[in-house]
Amino acid sequence: MQIAILLYDNFTALDAVGPYEVLSRIPGAEVVFTAARPGPVRTDMGSLALTADVPLSEVTAPDVLLVPGGPGTQAQLSDGPTLDWLRSVDAATTWTTSVCSGSLLLAAAGLLTGRRATSHWFCLDDLAALGAVPDTERVVIDGTYATAAGVSAGIDLALTLTGRMAGDEVAQAIQLVIEYDPQPPYDAGSTATAPAHLVTALRANDLILSP
Amino acid sequence: MQIAILLYDNFTALDAVGPYEVLSRIPGAEVVFTAARPGPVRTDMGSLALTADVPLSEVTAPDVLLVPGGPGTQAQLSDGPTLDWLRSVDAATTWTTSVCSGSLLLAAAGLLTGRRATSHWFCLDDLAALGAVPDTERVVIDGTYATAAGVSAGIDLALTLTGRMAGDEVAQAIQLVIEYDPQPPYDAGSTATAPAHLVTALRANDLILSP
Repeated sequence: MQIAILLYDNFTALDAVGPYEVLSRIPGAEVVFTAARPGPVRTDMGSLALTADVPLSEVTAPDVLLVPGGPGTQAQLSDGPTLDWLRSVDAATTWTTSVCSGSLLLAAAGLLTGRRATSHWFCLDDLAALGAVPDTERVVIDGTYATAAGVSAGIDLALTLTGRMAGDEVAQAIQLVIEYDPQPPYDAGSTATAPAHLVTALRANDLILSP
Repeated sequence: MQIAILLYDNFTALDAVGPYEVLSRIPGAEVVFTAARPGPVRTDMGSLALTADVPLSEVTAPDVLLVPGGPGTQAQLSDGPTLDWLRSVDAATTWTTSVCSGSLLLAAAGLLTGRRATSHWFCLDDLAALGAVPDTERVVIDGTYATAAGVSAGIDLALTLTGRMAGDEVAQAIQLVIEYDPQPPYDAGSTATAPAHLVTALRANDLILSP
């Protein structure tokens, strides 16, 4: 089973690494990080690069495709070769998946038209504009398409997919190995639970986090 | 504020990337990935490399040190230059931190002697053997030392530290940006909640996950 994770400039690292940490542990799985050009690919925060080992041209029939999100999504929305590649490999995948704004790329490729899908809470309107039917669940499955909410939701997505592909026992064993027993010190991880003024400030770009 | 994240062969990617995704968003923070030799550093699963931008010799006084864990910890336990570097930078840090078996390296450097600390559930006996006082809390703080349980616990560690360093509002805003509203599809993330036979099998190395 080959699992291809797409990298592009200014992607968000955890969108890719959360699912990788789960999916790479499935017995028999082979994960391949792929990009238009092999080599280091810088993440959105600038201080980290992940290596793409293989060019897109050499990844032709993965069983699972995972598209991370990040600010770099915007530039990819009009990148013809990347959208062509997404359409091409999707034709043979068991699962075509995304984390965060990665779903915008799947939608821009025409793969989510009329389908229920999710994205980072900040991007749900953009997702609708690209033809998908936005859903606020953390992990949304419609046919062979599985999309996750923002950044950290990729871990929940990957455990869900692992259960479907390899069974509950393997998924539970992997959850135990990565000790995924989350205990966030705050309850601010969704727009429903975070302080309302923080949601407002982030929506208005009034609250600037690094970089 | 400089945050140094140590990389070494066969580390576990999420141990480093979870905290990076939180800490890099603190206003004014600069994250630097550092290793004995700059360049790509392969993770334990083999299919991913992260780039170390700066050699250890050029990271002399970080405000925060983060040491990830992974199978590669074992080789580092007897690596004199790495342990020397840990002792040297620790002298000036505000926080010296670890995720997963990264605490074994801090302990091997003599930094956790007699201190409460935690690690991956698989490594708590090893942590005790190196002179620390094992604690099964997910995030353990003793003085300027903050250690986290296995792999995914680094996200909880980083949010806790962010609250201490930059205030609750910044930590909550970052939690919202990374949409950290965890909803694992199973309740198997700790030895207390996972099916007992999976804990037993993993302890006995009878259950082999990739690679």
